[in-house]
Amino acid sequence: MPATRKKSGHHAQPAHHSRSVSVAFQGELGAFSHVAVGQLLGRQAAVVPLPRFDDVFRALSKSRVDAAVIPIENTLHGSVHENYDHLLDFEPQIVGETHVRVSHSLIACAGVRSKDIRRVFSHPVALNQCLDFFTRNPHLERVPFYDTAGSVKMIIEQGLRDAAGIASSAAAEIYGAHVLKRAIEDDPRNFTRFFLLARPGDGLGPVGEARGWKTSIAFTTRNVPGALFRALSAFALRDLSLTKIESRPLRGKPWEYLFYLDFLGKADDPVCRRALAHLAEFTDLLRVLGSYPKARS
Amino acid sequence: MPATRKKSGHHAQPAHHSRSVSVAFQGELGAFSHVAVGQLLGRQAAVVPLPRFDDVFRALSKSRVDAAVIPIENTLHGSVHENYDHLLDFEPQIVGETHVRVSHSLIACAGVRSKDIRRVFSHPVALNQCLDFFTRNPHLERVPFYDTAGSVKMIIEQGLRDAAGIASSAAAEIYGAHVLKRAIEDDPRNFTRFFLLARPGDGLGPVGEARGWKTSIAFTTRNVPGALFRALSAFALRDLSLTKIESRPLRGKPWEYLFYLDFLGKADDPVCRRALAHLAEFTDLLRVLGSYPKARS
Repeated sequence: MPATRKKSGHHAQPAHHSRSVSVAFQGELGAFSHVAVGQLLGRQAAVVPLPRFDDVFRALSKSRVDAAVIPIENTLHGSVHENYDHLLDFEPQIVGETHVRVSHSLIACAGVRSKDIRRVFSHPVALNQCLDFFTRNPHLERVPFYDTAGSVKMIIEQGLRDAAGIASSAAAEIYGAHVLKRAIEDDPRNFTRFFLLARPGDGLGPVGEARGWKTSIAFTTRNVPGALFRALSAFALRDLSLTKIESRPLRGKPWEYLFYLDFLGKADDPVCRRALAHLAEFTDLLRVLGSYPKARS
Repeated sequence: MPATRKKSGHHAQPAHHSRSVSVAFQGELGAFSHVAVGQLLGRQAAVVPLPRFDDVFRALSKSRVDAAVIPIENTLHGSVHENYDHLLDFEPQIVGETHVRVSHSLIACAGVRSKDIRRVFSHPVALNQCLDFFTRNPHLERVPFYDTAGSVKMIIEQGLRDAAGIASSAAAEIYGAHVLKRAIEDDPRNFTRFFLLARPGDGLGPVGEARGWKTSIAFTTRNVPGALFRALSAFALRDLSLTKIESRPLRGKPWEYLFYLDFLGKADDPVCRRALAHLAEFTDLLRVLGSYPKARS
């Protein structure tokens, strides 16, 4: 279900609505980030796959693309701290979020049957998420590869008839391959949350369905007892709901902690503005990373 | 600096102090978890490498080993939620913690020189943490492998003369290999925090240097505004310092959140006992995962 794009009065809306939006993501075509792009912007978006996360942030920052999609946390593997660092360094605005179910498919060349397969290529993390499948199929050799969608691309390019890749079913569609088996992952609770990023004031409006707003912030407090309690009073006293909080020790600054916090509300609503002003009294750094429509979770 | 083991009156101390402690970890000999074992228990520990994290917890739970060492969070990649899940399911006690600097070495067979190397094997995550090194050495082919230490083991076993692995320098020592270059990682701020686990009441005492205590707990609150604020009052009103807090949405229970929290103090000290009793009033589930000597951070 591609989300619909909502225009919003507090964002400038420049001319590029008449053409398709270009969006950068890390990985190969067919990666789960590419699936997230589809959920957020639909299929009309012009995608720009890049090798590294900092390439993605730089492409957005240098106006080589209109938007970027990055993973920010996974239900099994936690927060992607590298991308929080880039959010603080490159200062884009978060304008949307979506959750992608990380469901792995076994994918091969058209005409290849399950019983032909001897080798299975994928990223080791994906191979390790399908251990029950390999236990049930002990004749299959697991071969580590750079990434999930890339393994399908390679198998198709080389025309391998005894091999399959493990990737999103979107990868099969993109590379003209065939899904032999869906949902071979051990744990169906594997979801990744993605952010849609735009340049501040550049007009790519908030994206998502109208089920309320969420705001993401980052702040630091001095490491004294009660510092976080005082900071959270800004939300509790105004009945604002938190949906995420995470502390991260600042390396090299042993007495400071960085916090990531998401709350329900829009940063420029009056109550939220007062809460953020109150919070600023009890924090050193305070950064609003963006307000965006809350995704179905 | 291997930490010294401290005996503590509140843990029973059975007979197995006279023999070496057996300790399970996930991965190959020479993995960073193995380095953590050395930091926590010294070199006398009998190590039991196992393929999966749940194997490690099960081996401890079934008394096949005396202790286990598991990674719990990384400064770049966040918390290892899988291991938090296992902590809640298998219910071991945390009796120690340590931080391991994830520093990658380029490792080859003895006699092989840097200029002989054409291929570099390692886990893709490790290969991606050394991108600057590969940019400076564009003639090197990167080959994904199952894990870091395992790549060194394979190169030695097969006697490859044109290949190197990327792993801990401990892996070089264990497999009789040669370190060609140390610290080839891009980001020196890459640290992993490990827990030492024991069976409750089984006598492996708290392990670590005497620089104060830390307690790790997990709790759930209903998702209502101010729920976390009320929970944190238990610590703030008693001047107890938090060193970690992280929320995790409970999949399938959209109105509940699970929190991981670490605070400075020992669960059976009177003030901490009262704080935990107070906290229990404002939480549904509350689990003390263990109290242990605070590691140098």
